[in-house]
Amino acid sequence: MPRLVTAFSNPLVKQTRDLRDKRGRREHGLFLAEGLRILTEARETGRLPRTLFFAAASAAHLLVRALVADVEARGDEAIETTPDILSKLSGKDNPQTVLGVFDEWRTPLDALDRSSAGLWLVAERLRDPGNLGTILRTADAVAAGALILIGECVDPFSVEAVRASMGALFTVPVVRAEWTEFLPWLRAGAGQLVGLSLETDTNYRAADYPAPTFLLTGNEAQGMPAEYASACDLIVKLPMLGKADSLNAAVATAVVAYEVLARQRG
Amino acid sequence: MPRLVTAFSNPLVKQTRDLRDKRGRREHGLFLAEGLRILTEARETGRLPRTLFFAAASAAHLLVRALVADVEARGDEAIETTPDILSKLSGKDNPQTVLGVFDEWRTPLDALDRSSAGLWLVAERLRDPGNLGTILRTADAVAAGALILIGECVDPFSVEAVRASMGALFTVPVVRAEWTEFLPWLRAGAGQLVGLSLETDTNYRAADYPAPTFLLTGNEAQGMPAEYASACDLIVKLPMLGKADSLNAAVATAVVAYEVLARQRG
Repeated sequence: MPRLVTAFSNPLVKQTRDLRDKRGRREHGLFLAEGLRILTEARETGRLPRTLFFAAASAAHLLVRALVADVEARGDEAIETTPDILSKLSGKDNPQTVLGVFDEWRTPLDALDRSSAGLWLVAERLRDPGNLGTILRTADAVAAGALILIGECVDPFSVEAVRASMGALFTVPVVRAEWTEFLPWLRAGAGQLVGLSLETDTNYRAADYPAPTFLLTGNEAQGMPAEYASACDLIVKLPMLGKADSLNAAVATAVVAYEVLARQRG
Repeated sequence: MPRLVTAFSNPLVKQTRDLRDKRGRREHGLFLAEGLRILTEARETGRLPRTLFFAAASAAHLLVRALVADVEARGDEAIETTPDILSKLSGKDNPQTVLGVFDEWRTPLDALDRSSAGLWLVAERLRDPGNLGTILRTADAVAAGALILIGECVDPFSVEAVRASMGALFTVPVVRAEWTEFLPWLRAGAGQLVGLSLETDTNYRAADYPAPTFLLTGNEAQGMPAEYASACDLIVKLPMLGKADSLNAAVATAVVAYEVLARQRG
């Protein structure tokens, strides 16, 4: 039977709230995901929350009941609570009706099987959690093998990144690696590294993308370091016909990712 | 000579701060844009702020001096101020060094010349200011004729949308119209309406996009109403190979927009 928690002073409420900060996540090895859609997505991939909070008003919903049953069957806890507490936990005025506290996980580079996908997304110093979540959704849609984050990127387990990923955090492996680990790993097997940059004459439509292609996107403001560009087998650019001369990093990644997909599928 | 303002109680500071809310913008017909890059972009398109705030520390910067000179030459006001005031005005802990208060403007449908561009972006009930700004950047990059906003969309002059547009708000015409105005206007001239939806068998790569093409993107969560889809000449979809079955609206728009661009340019 779910326990009822309505006090802000409850220690579990306090601990869960701490997970909105990177320090809290690191300390506990846990992160937050909100919303029935995302939690159901997680459940379908076999990931269940360690603690599930749900609004009393949603208790009768079939998908909520399925989550509660699965969480309790594993010996973890489902907690019925108030919209006020959910609002406090999520930091939003209009909170979702369910919120899960999940174990973080790590996928090492060596766990990736590069023959399992034709396209792999690589982002370096990605700083915006919305962009990270958006790129994860794209990675899911194009069936990329993983998103590989290089260097100081925003935390993929941050509340904003998880939210923006709309569940794709649970379906797409995310690897965090330094450039000095990534490059030797890449060169130890098949695959070309394709960088996205304006510093080239090669239009992205004019290139070939044999599988596996690793598509590298640089930092939102600065692009990629010259050293990374030099290590690429190919640099491609998107036409930029406008005056503002800027394209969102997640958008640029998606346009080229879909081009790779179309070309690989013939 | 720029006036120095350092008091939070200054009426101009208060009025400017009000512009972060839709009500304040509507009341004054003004909006905020921050950052030297965006303000310089605006200046290059001929738009100058009515009031320019700049940090004392940035006063010597050539581009800041150019802005101050132009604003004062027009008889408007440049105000030197503190990082604290800029922080209060922008709502950010690390504010930009310049912030401009601009007159809002409106572009009516009838002002558009559909022979001037091969691609036009249309979004209905777009709710996320980040998506709106991102789509404006894409519109700029693909040289779309305008972004036409249908129905209850987020305010393109909101601080978040302006910020996410990275200056493209100043380079791309934005039209706000009801569907009942848009459709008769569209049908009174050349052009096909292409809707983005999963409710079709037509892959976006398999379609033709003669100029002018009007590309319609629906609401982030719900997609477009059936009535709008019925009015389209063509519905296309992006392949979705993943489990999460979701793609960001600004990303989907950009992938198809670049496809249209490539096909029209041969």
